[in-house]
Amino acid sequence: MKDQTLLITGANGFTGRHACDYFASKGNRVVAAIRRQNSLPAISGVDPRVCDLTVKNEVLAMVDDISPDFVLHLAGKNSVPESWNDPLLYMEKNVLSTLTLLDALRNHPECRILIVGSRLKFPLVSFPYSPHPYSLSKTLEECAVLSWRELFHQHILLAEPSNLIGPGSSTGICALLARHIVNSEQGRGMNSFRISSRYDMCDFVDVRDAILAYDLILRKGESGRVYPICSGIECSLGDVVTSMLELGNVSIVLEMGNAPQSSSTDDDYSCEDLHEMGWKPQIPWEQSLVEIMEYFRNGGGKG
Amino acid sequence: MKDQTLLITGANGFTGRHACDYFASKGNRVVAAIRRQNSLPAISGVDPRVCDLTVKNEVLAMVDDISPDFVLHLAGKNSVPESWNDPLLYMEKNVLSTLTLLDALRNHPECRILIVGSRLKFPLVSFPYSPHPYSLSKTLEECAVLSWRELFHQHILLAEPSNLIGPGSSTGICALLARHIVNSEQGRGMNSFRISSRYDMCDFVDVRDAILAYDLILRKGESGRVYPICSGIECSLGDVVTSMLELGNVSIVLEMGNAPQSSSTDDDYSCEDLHEMGWKPQIPWEQSLVEIMEYFRNGGGKG
Repeated sequence: MKDQTLLITGANGFTGRHACDYFASKGNRVVAAIRRQNSLPAISGVDPRVCDLTVKNEVLAMVDDISPDFVLHLAGKNSVPESWNDPLLYMEKNVLSTLTLLDALRNHPECRILIVGSRLKFPLVSFPYSPHPYSLSKTLEECAVLSWRELFHQHILLAEPSNLIGPGSSTGICALLARHIVNSEQGRGMNSFRISSRYDMCDFVDVRDAILAYDLILRKGESGRVYPICSGIECSLGDVVTSMLELGNVSIVLEMGNAPQSSSTDDDYSCEDLHEMGWKPQIPWEQSLVEIMEYFRNGGGKG
Repeated sequence: MKDQTLLITGANGFTGRHACDYFASKGNRVVAAIRRQNSLPAISGVDPRVCDLTVKNEVLAMVDDISPDFVLHLAGKNSVPESWNDPLLYMEKNVLSTLTLLDALRNHPECRILIVGSRLKFPLVSFPYSPHPYSLSKTLEECAVLSWRELFHQHILLAEPSNLIGPGSSTGICALLARHIVNSEQGRGMNSFRISSRYDMCDFVDVRDAILAYDLILRKGESGRVYPICSGIECSLGDVVTSMLELGNVSIVLEMGNAPQSSSTDDDYSCEDLHEMGWKPQIPWEQSLVEIMEYFRNGGGKG
């Protein structure tokens, strides 16, 4: 991928910032699409580009200007509670923006495009029961993207990561809890925290491991395939939360119920394809948790 | 439905104009949403309202202003060849606009909403193979709409008409051929006409019969159900074309192949639900063809 141009959308998001660091450090020419000026810290080797992915002409101009060899499409919305409040926004950002990007890339038929889906999509065979608008948006996105590929013969790949964790600002349960613990340590905020259930089973992958998988899929994945990305280790939400609380210097009261579930309904979830391509996650979740705590203790997520 | 307000979207389209005539003549208060001023002839009892369904705030303002009891959503794009040229437009108009409308109608939970789908959708079970972007857009629309109903508990009904024919400007095969014949009679245009194949089997329903079905579904249909609308009489495209040519006073050379198919891949298509509700098509296709020819001979479709 050296000397080739990689476009990263959603470059200022949780995964996007890690992805910019990683691909720039590998020597790629990275163009980082962001929605607002100055929303991304300066990273050597990364060329920021302001582009609103909901505006067709902006996307077309950007894509034609940089003529990417690879696209890592991370932009989108990913909060289940927010999706209930503004479901239409989720359809715009997760479905239409993705198709706007694919449409612009029709002029670049050699480009390899990785769309990052979600394990929270619902299986279309048992349609039409999506548990929340976020799931609906990601399901429609995947259906649209796979069909689009059949129609227009672009090199489109899909990744379906489980819960990504690691240092950085995220809306995931671990980041929310870490922020909560650090706030309490510093005398701010409530000392109770709500989770859906101790018994929800979750699979966590460090975001940096996921990016190694994205790199591999972009280079060697088979067009039209969906690549699940997971650690293969299901742990209970209770265990993860307890481990995080042990890293903190405060006592937090856990409340149960009425919180969004982090777990997927999809039981058949295997990374065999990626294992065969040589990928295995390197960072155990215990280490990710330590780094998440460090990130927030060092004032992360305040800028 | 008398004294109640019906909002018709796509009111200046082929079906929309017939629907305005019909519901206004029944004494309904009809609000006709159109995209551009003056695109609809004045119809007594019909209140035209300019609204771009892709603009969220315009839709919200219109819906809150008129507070409809019923919505007949006919707006959308429906040309298979055009969908190849501008697939993104089809996703915007057939998927996102529909959801924008449903989102605005969340403030009006009693409203009964009929979404008009297409028989050209593909079955999601054998996903992801849509034959063209139009089919993809209508498939995503149906999937989105049914899931949306599950999430937000609105009274959403779906109709799936087969090929609608009848007097008026349409992009269907019968209207195209009638226009072609009349042009030839008047010494304009080529004398050859291309169809996909003589042997494609099609089901045609007169647009006025379809509107009687829409009326019935809006009033009595079961929320969340999909109502196919068809005549139950499959005829070959060759037969239909031959019948139309016999109505003309010119000889037209038929060319075969490379034209969009009008037929559906869906074999299991029955109107039993509608029959049980008392609906049966009244107008045989031969009569529709005569009226289509009359429409174009009288200068229709030029204004």
